[in-house]
Amino acid sequence: MAAAGVWNRKHLLGIADLSPAEIELVLDTAESFREVADRPIKKVPTLRGKTVINLFLEPSTRTRASFEIAEKRMSADNINLGTSGSSLEKGETLTDMALNLQAMSPDILVIRHRHPGVPQLLAKRISASVINAGDGAHEHPTQALLDAMTIRQRKGKLSGLKVTMVGDIEHSRVVRSNIHLLTKMGAKVTVAGPRTMMPPGIAAMGVEVSHDLDQALSGADAVIMLRIQLERGARAAFPSVREYFQMFALTAERLKRAKSDVIILHPGPMNRGVEISSEVADGPYSVILDQVANGVAVRMAVLYLLSGAGQEAV
Amino acid sequence: MAAAGVWNRKHLLGIADLSPAEIELVLDTAESFREVADRPIKKVPTLRGKTVINLFLEPSTRTRASFEIAEKRMSADNINLGTSGSSLEKGETLTDMALNLQAMSPDILVIRHRHPGVPQLLAKRISASVINAGDGAHEHPTQALLDAMTIRQRKGKLSGLKVTMVGDIEHSRVVRSNIHLLTKMGAKVTVAGPRTMMPPGIAAMGVEVSHDLDQALSGADAVIMLRIQLERGARAAFPSVREYFQMFALTAERLKRAKSDVIILHPGPMNRGVEISSEVADGPYSVILDQVANGVAVRMAVLYLLSGAGQEAV
Amino acid sequence: MAAAGVWNRKHLLGIADLSPAEIELVLDTAESFREVADRPIKKVPTLRGKTVINLFLEPSTRTRASFEIAEKRMSADNINLGTSGSSLEKGETLTDMALNLQAMSPDILVIRHRHPGVPQLLAKRISASVINAGDGAHEHPTQALLDAMTIRQRKGKLSGLKVTMVGDIEHSRVVRSNIHLLTKMGAKVTVAGPRTMMPPGIAAMGVEVSHDLDQALSGADAVIMLRIQLERGARAAFPSVREYFQMFALTAERLKRAKSDVIILHPGPMNRGVEISSEVADGPYSVILDQVANGVAVRMAVLYLLSGAGQEAV
Repeated sequence: MAAAGVWNRKHLLGIADLSPAEIELVLDTAESFREVADRPIKKVPTLRGKTVINLFLEPSTRTRASFEIAEKRMSADNINLGTSGSSLEKGETLTDMALNLQAMSPDILVIRHRHPGVPQLLAKRISASVINAGDGAHEHPTQALLDAMTIRQRKGKLSGLKVTMVGDIEHSRVVRSNIHLLTKMGAKVTVAGPRTMMPPGIAAMGVEVSHDLDQALSGADAVIMLRIQLERGARAAFPSVREYFQMFALTAERLKRAKSDVIILHPGPMNRGVEISSEVADGPYSVILDQVANGVAVRMAVLYLLSGAGQEAV
Repeated sequence: MAAAGVWNRKHLLGIADLSPAEIELVLDTAESFREVADRPIKKVPTLRGKTVINLFLEPSTRTRASFEIAEKRMSADNINLGTSGSSLEKGETLTDMALNLQAMSPDILVIRHRHPGVPQLLAKRISASVINAGDGAHEHPTQALLDAMTIRQRKGKLSGLKVTMVGDIEHSRVVRSNIHLLTKMGAKVTVAGPRTMMPPGIAAMGVEVSHDLDQALSGADAVIMLRIQLERGARAAFPSVREYFQMFALTAERLKRAKSDVIILHPGPMNRGVEISSEVADGPYSVILDQVANGVAVRMAVLYLLSGAGQEAV
Repeated sequence: MAAAGVWNRKHLLGIADLSPAEIELVLDTAESFREVADRPIKKVPTLRGKTVINLFLEPSTRTRASFEIAEKRMSADNINLGTSGSSLEKGETLTDMALNLQAMSPDILVIRHRHPGVPQLLAKRISASVINAGDGAHEHPTQALLDAMTIRQRKGKLSGLKVTMVGDIEHSRVVRSNIHLLTKMGAKVTVAGPRTMMPPGIAAMGVEVSHDLDQALSGADAVIMLRIQLERGARAAFPSVREYFQMFALTAERLKRAKSDVIILHPGPMNRGVEISSEVADGPYSVILDQVANGVAVRMAVLYLLSGAGQEAV
């Protein structure tokens, strides 16, 4: 664990809080954990005897699985709590639930919640470290970190790159965290999507806004395609899937506008034939599966740093 | 683990079965486990290689989480089975399910079920130790033990104290287990609640019955407020939440009737503004979060004693 | 672990693929793991640091519990993913989900799916070992292996035995896997059931077909009763439960046709009074609970062999 730098944070609530040096420390630490997945015995003792609670109050398969695998590979004791059958259904306030969990002395609480700001609220009330695993349309910091790790692996740097994000910009926590991270690290960010999916004032975050996909792709080093949340009423924001595909889907034809060594990211799960063609999803520019592998490494790194283990030799 | 006394029971089915010496042994053992939660490595090897099945056939967040954390801190291998997707939905009898689980050689089965007597029934049929985690309105022994542990910590004893329980006395397993425990240990118990929530013949359990909260609180050393199960049709037993609050909620004003060093307990999840005011819930007399922390310690103690580990040096 | 023979397979997809020597190797290995369940510390280090994902996309209690217990006793790190809240609900393709899971570097994927062929499909796409835990009406190999283990324990052999399977032959993956296994090992298999539950061409699998239960039971060494899936519309295939019971249920009276030392198996969960009388289910010929205990041992054996541990000394 030779990553330089110092980590003094108790929580990981959002990328907005982090300095470039802190971001780099997480990425470097994650690189050092990446090889654990290739070992015959995928296990380090760092979090032995630590209790991690995964509190996912929104459905999730991949993010929860990624955290769980990271926790087990770090030797933590973890438990999963979720919506179904939870006492939140019995009308308990979120603060009461958090205080109750805190009273069980967890070391780390990983939380996903549909309301923005919930992880921040909990972090003020409890003494465990809090990791934001997605809060409404606000932030999803470990996703932005794994995206950055993936880009950096392929491009050797983040600074100076043109990164384009395409889709429902308004409702995406992935976009928000990525804009914070990429602009802090010196990348040039373009967001593209239909007007009905573009929040007013987004340009103030330091990004270029486009409603023309061809233009947004022009000269891009990396493209992050977003999932169109058809199940969350995105249909209301667009006439039809077919029309969306014609205007904003990433196809091999369109991709020619980007740099010749462009890479394609997607947070998953993909809607093939909606925001991305299968040809692109499975093509040579896709680094989508690298993202997943890096996701486990990033979460191991965050668990490691928050646990205070980074302050000792390993 | 220097707790005196001898434990010869295979199961923990209810407080009604226990002698005062056994109750004291659990409480003393729990005290010795309490500090595990404050260690940097929250783990003891007692249940290594033991299989614990958590069979929660009623929704639960906090009790299940408390058992799970206790099990993991004891190094047990635990698995969770629940209603959703269980073969009980396929029409299997409870006995068949239990025998099937037994055939997988678990050491301990933790069960919650909506019907009273189910843990007792299973204990007769299987060779694993059975812990009752709540059976209908019958018993919830670990809750009573953690309540007693909490009171004893603050008052130094149970004997001679006046303990008042308030709410839906009829449908509460917490009340039943607490009455058994507190009367065995020499406390004076008062139950208070509306007539529609008071079971006939409850006085025969050796408690004083009151329908006047002010009178019931008078001189109390400890008050256990019960959750009003609004979601289980408690509305039928009372005209309105507002009226319930006016007559039976614990407010700062009402609390003046109790002793000046009274403590307030609640099994959670709380309905703020229904059975308890926020001022009291968050006030200086509240020991509600102590209860939660003690819950993990009590469950560790019970797991320890049932596993037979208490018969060896540790 | 003195089982003779060599295991070179990466996956366990179905019994149809296995040679008699391979079947025997699994059964012998399972026998050697059986005693782990009787140890005070039920744990072997074989899969320490290995990641096992249990992906049950059909409800299951007992098979999932059996795999989970086997995995934990082998010291694996395991995580459970299921239908509820899974990204498959968000329209992701199965292949994308599998590739995503693969990118998290699991060593073994245990999958149950309602469509036949899904485990085979995944095995082609991912580098983890795949265990088929039931795919539609196709195969359920660990069930057939545990059935064979149970019969062999009681009869000392499989070759030459008459084994009769009774029930909904058409929709049963248990039947299909058992026919493959038992015929490969030299047993004589008879299938019996109503015409509406008998697939055309089943005789081509090398079994005798009967629509008369008395005849099918005649001289049987072992009888495998199948669950009538009343919840899956089996009613459509039969006029009434009562009529089914009269014609195809196993009763003490009917059992007289079988050999005097006949044994009765059932994969569970049983419908008492539908396909089997309680007298038989609980009677002296029943080996139903042996099946469950053997299930854990068989799954430990399969995990052991697929992990490559069998190639080293243990």
